[in-house]
Amino acid sequence: MTEDAIRSAEAVLAAVRFDAAGLVPAVAQQHDTGEVLMLAWMNRDAVAETLATGRVCYFSRSRGGLWRKGETSGQVQSLKELRVDCDGDTLLLLVDQHGVACHTGRRSCFYRAVRDGALVEIAAPLVAPEALYGAGHKHG
Amino acid sequence: MTEDAIRSAEAVLAAVRFDAAGLVPAVAQQHDTGEVLMLAWMNRDAVAETLATGRVCYFSRSRGGLWRKGETSGQVQSLKELRVDCDGDTLLLLVDQHGVACHTGRRSCFYRAVRDGALVEIAAPLVAPEALYGAGHKHG
Repeated sequence: MTEDAIRSAEAVLAAVRFDAAGLVPAVAQQHDTGEVLMLAWMNRDAVAETLATGRVCYFSRSRGGLWRKGETSGQVQSLKELRVDCDGDTLLLLVDQHGVACHTGRRSCFYRAVRDGALVEIAAPLVAPEALYGAGHKHG
Repeated sequence: MTEDAIRSAEAVLAAVRFDAAGLVPAVAQQHDTGEVLMLAWMNRDAVAETLATGRVCYFSRSRGGLWRKGETSGQVQSLKELRVDCDGDTLLLLVDQHGVACHTGRRSCFYRAVRDGALVEIAAPLVAPEALYGAGHKHG
């Protein structure tokens, strides 16, 4: 890590209130369009690595380890800005999403909406999931 | 509840995976500007009430009860659309925020950003918190 990255990580980590599991929810938003892409979780190491590398790294609760977004699928997120909320218990990541954020091949994970009393799909996949993951691995 | 509201609530609740505490994180986004305002939590009753009334109701983890956003401060959120993510474990609320979302008097709770290696405030309060809460109550 560069000195700047270490200082950034320390400043952020001091302001973040991780939960009992050592995690904090992080909302990823496309920096220019404002589209909310996904929500995932970060631990201290994920925050530090993201600030150090400029590539978003989450903590996978299902795998129990760091999840470098795009390492399998190529659909990486470049960090534009990291924000912390008033209580320090949520992060907002302004990112540049390469390709699609969702493991279903959709740009955003929020592709189902309540309309006229029913939950309907409002976005179609842009890529086939099989094209993203050879062995059916779900983390992007 | 109207029949439509009951159908909506059932359709959504069937798709949502609440956590062990019976909660799901909900991201509130201003529907027209795209600004991410806050993240809070909902239980089943909060989701059902929000769909039934069109006014956003969360579950306050600190108070352990329903938190009708704006009931103290007047800063209510009108629901424009409710979305569910791919895994069903996060909600996205497109809202029309009346006034400010943050208990600090700022429009958004995400008013601190990492810039040049430091965490800095990027938005000032639009209203004094004392003007929002008579007795220092923090929930908006």
